[in-house]
Amino acid sequence: MQSTLNVVIIGGVACGPKTAARLRRLHPNANITMIERDALVSYGACGLPYYVEGLFSHINTLIETPVGVARTPAFFDKAKGFKVLIRTEATKIDRDKKIVVIRNLETSETGSLPYDKLVIATGGIAFHPPIPGINLKNVWFMTHPDHAESLVKEIQEQGLKKAAMVGAGFIGIEMAEALIHRGLSVNLIEMADQIMPGVLDHDIATYASKHLRQKGVNIVLGERVSAVLGENKASGVKTDRQEIDADAVIIAVGTRPNDTLARDAGLECMGRGGIVINSYCQTSDPNIYAGGDCAVNTYIDRVFGSPMYVPLGSTANKHGRVIANHIAGKGMPFGGISGTGIVKAFDFNISRTGLSERQAREMNLDIETTYWSGPDRPHYMPNSKPLLIKMIACKKTRKLLGVQAAGMGDVARRIDTAATVIRFGGTLDELSDIDFAYAPPFSPPIDPLATCAHILLNKLDGIANGISAYEAKSRIDKGDVILLDVRTPGEIEMMQLPYPTTTIPLGALREKADSLPKDKDILAFCKVSMRGYEAQRILNAKGFDRVWFIEGGIIGWPFEVKMLK
Amino acid sequence: MQSTLNVVIIGGVACGPKTAARLRRLHPNANITMIERDALVSYGACGLPYYVEGLFSHINTLIETPVGVARTPAFFDKAKGFKVLIRTEATKIDRDKKIVVIRNLETSETGSLPYDKLVIATGGIAFHPPIPGINLKNVWFMTHPDHAESLVKEIQEQGLKKAAMVGAGFIGIEMAEALIHRGLSVNLIEMADQIMPGVLDHDIATYASKHLRQKGVNIVLGERVSAVLGENKASGVKTDRQEIDADAVIIAVGTRPNDTLARDAGLECMGRGGIVINSYCQTSDPNIYAGGDCAVNTYIDRVFGSPMYVPLGSTANKHGRVIANHIAGKGMPFGGISGTGIVKAFDFNISRTGLSERQAREMNLDIETTYWSGPDRPHYMPNSKPLLIKMIACKKTRKLLGVQAAGMGDVARRIDTAATVIRFGGTLDELSDIDFAYAPPFSPPIDPLATCAHILLNKLDGIANGISAYEAKSRIDKGDVILLDVRTPGEIEMMQLPYPTTTIPLGALREKADSLPKDKDILAFCKVSMRGYEAQRILNAKGFDRVWFIEGGIIGWPFEVKMLK
Repeated sequence: MQSTLNVVIIGGVACGPKTAARLRRLHPNANITMIERDALVSYGACGLPYYVEGLFSHINTLIETPVGVARTPAFFDKAKGFKVLIRTEATKIDRDKKIVVIRNLETSETGSLPYDKLVIATGGIAFHPPIPGINLKNVWFMTHPDHAESLVKEIQEQGLKKAAMVGAGFIGIEMAEALIHRGLSVNLIEMADQIMPGVLDHDIATYASKHLRQKGVNIVLGERVSAVLGENKASGVKTDRQEIDADAVIIAVGTRPNDTLARDAGLECMGRGGIVINSYCQTSDPNIYAGGDCAVNTYIDRVFGSPMYVPLGSTANKHGRVIANHIAGKGMPFGGISGTGIVKAFDFNISRTGLSERQAREMNLDIETTYWSGPDRPHYMPNSKPLLIKMIACKKTRKLLGVQAAGMGDVARRIDTAATVIRFGGTLDELSDIDFAYAPPFSPPIDPLATCAHILLNKLDGIANGISAYEAKSRIDKGDVILLDVRTPGEIEMMQLPYPTTTIPLGALREKADSLPKDKDILAFCKVSMRGYEAQRILNAKGFDRVWFIEGGIIGWPFEVKMLK
Repeated sequence: MQSTLNVVIIGGVACGPKTAARLRRLHPNANITMIERDALVSYGACGLPYYVEGLFSHINTLIETPVGVARTPAFFDKAKGFKVLIRTEATKIDRDKKIVVIRNLETSETGSLPYDKLVIATGGIAFHPPIPGINLKNVWFMTHPDHAESLVKEIQEQGLKKAAMVGAGFIGIEMAEALIHRGLSVNLIEMADQIMPGVLDHDIATYASKHLRQKGVNIVLGERVSAVLGENKASGVKTDRQEIDADAVIIAVGTRPNDTLARDAGLECMGRGGIVINSYCQTSDPNIYAGGDCAVNTYIDRVFGSPMYVPLGSTANKHGRVIANHIAGKGMPFGGISGTGIVKAFDFNISRTGLSERQAREMNLDIETTYWSGPDRPHYMPNSKPLLIKMIACKKTRKLLGVQAAGMGDVARRIDTAATVIRFGGTLDELSDIDFAYAPPFSPPIDPLATCAHILLNKLDGIANGISAYEAKSRIDKGDVILLDVRTPGEIEMMQLPYPTTTIPLGALREKADSLPKDKDILAFCKVSMRGYEAQRILNAKGFDRVWFIEGGIIGWPFEVKMLK
């Protein structure tokens, strides 16, 4: 029985090859066939923006193994021990007969493959907005090596100068950087009122946008592209507000799960798209698995655990392993995802894990949030770089729910740690005593993530009375607050918030507190908020009840600041 | 009652100031006094090697806040709101009268401070080996800003050229690098047969030593320094095997907890030194707390949780917070440490968390280990750098027990994640589905830590038959094994193991397997061990029972390799 197990895998980019390779190692006698519509299999699609940027010069690098062997059907046959049919489409799954009907896209020949276990790994489809001009020349999607290669070729041959990057998600931001490095001017156009809308909260997005703008990206928010302009080739895009010139239009407005085959076969799918799978990646038919970008994940926390569509190569690979294990009878359930994502944008690293504040509020969770800003290493180390962290926790359980971080500092390290805490359902108290790796070349003695947890704990415990920059700005705009800057005169000379401010250095605050009114709201701040918090405690101790500090301080202020020196 | 709470803190470097500052914020009316023998308080002692290296030019940087305010008694009084007595020694704790007897080291005046709560944060003492010549000029310990300042001054003024760095722990390695950057030649002398003996297993230490040697550090292992040579000033050191010239001798052979005061007061201490504390940092007298380098920690896992002496600034700060919280009635217990440590050594990052293999074996734990080597990012990214990871897990529970990592790649990120998994008592299965932050500038789709966990799971599940480089070498040295290199001819031309080897590229192995004998042990390997593992599975499927792969491959081989190109 085991020796004749037929496994058919539909889709050959990430989850498919991972499933096949792992299953071959676990199950030497299974008959494994992977089919793929495209001529290429197992390519590193996530690397396309870096090819466009010019970080490596041959697109084939993305199709080769690290030692330069092309991942062809022959490679999979010889090195990995399974059969690959390229340019082959699955047109139908017949669950009664347990066959997949296939068609060769070169010869149009049809046939069928019998399966005992079937794996659907058909991936995602870049959303093609139904707008005029979308099929013009010089309009690119960025989902296949051919697209990246063609873009680079046309930039060079036509001398393209002005890019309209439509969509400011992960790919949009990576491509904006790549195109700037290629010498193009870039308009990054996003329908939402912030960059990375399903990923970041508005405040962190606003903070990160400052850096993109400094690097020359013109960010256009809140405008929907309604047409690509041009006769034969793109000459611009039209939004609901303006026309924007462009000789290159790149569109990355989201990925949809490619679930048609599964739907047609009567497998359970989400209304909004995506094959429903259990923690072993089984679909509603236990002999059929699905994984990667065509499937919908479960959020890691069983309490809040609604399905979540986050298409990522990392998850696709995990699914592949889970599927192969389960077919081979070694099933460990998959714990789910925590919605982690990261992007490099010039000198900034931008990332999040867990729930955003917006998501948590939409779920009516009783949460508290805070911000920390500061250097990611001791101030005396020249490799020290700034970071802004936002943290979200459940008020009642004190469980960490989400973290967002942006800045030049080491973001990935903190997000991975946070994702791990979230994986284990850990509290802020537990987070704050993790034995982090400390030495000055790597971090301050108290890791920024732990410090941020401390601030949030202090808020939950009623000690720290912090408010976000957004809330501070709204209260300043409404007027009648005292903005109290407790920095030193030297710091104040360099940079200020663009509002009337009372300045008392922290060291003088105990003496001069009486000069402040007790019947007004006082918003204290400093460079990063530590002294701002200290000021709040000092004033509280002196009988002031209406004192808050602005979390993240002037460094974490997402709006414009006055730079004086 | 609250308004008259007297808190005395003995020691002003890390745990002391942290306790005082936090307590002031929690408890506006406590009467807080911190005393310190030295003239300096709250300095960044961990930064001394980086001052010596020349990464910043004023030693005062270590004594100042990030915005350049010196941490003087006046600063603590005004900005932090507590009293600091410098050059003041605690000579006795009278627990019956609840007073600390003090002496001013400038004036020799004595006095006493009453306490309701006492905090002992007297730190560690650099071990001074009782050997001739230890007090000669040009012999330095590296525990105080004065030492670093004097060393730099004398290097410049005397034109020192040859350093003997005695002790290859964290400070020894940091100083070796600093002195090489300063233009000195360096002999790094270590009594044990490896660098970082209490921290790393021998294999990872050997691997890391290769890099130090490549950077010009002459490592002398297994030799005990029995004297510093010289008349007025050091001219070298004498070991049990040789004399080594040196015009600068730096000694860093470990730190001992400074527990004399506590011992004299009858507080419980470990036989080997160190004040015993509970998870609230209380000593055997509940009104007396201890924290930082004078105290002994509990290992984080209550099952194996023996006390562990790991003096680190990060832990000292955590203790300070725990103590202040407990005094203020907001006690959250401290979860303990997991023995994390990290050091930068030239282009290498070297780190560990949890138990080493040696420690786990000494505890008779039933463990399995594995190694992973490879690039820390996709191979096509130019910022991709190599890493070697060693992982230790419990066979029965599959719990992660320890991780060591070394290489140019991003070590800190993986160690922090591992420390977090260990903090939560997580298993390898749980580790492997953490939602790590993935994008090509940061990591491969499956994070190296997850891949390493996969290999270890494969070993525990009887699928992967890996052996360490050490075991491989021992079996090769004994003879009668087939060393099977499954790399491509191009790779083999570049680098080889220095032994007779059979070469069959992986892609040809299914066809050529019959040319291998079934009655001999076959040790397969490739660049990083992935194809080596694949080869093992291919040969198993063809009926070979005696096949192993060498974990970490040729990249992770800690001994010499033949570089051909």
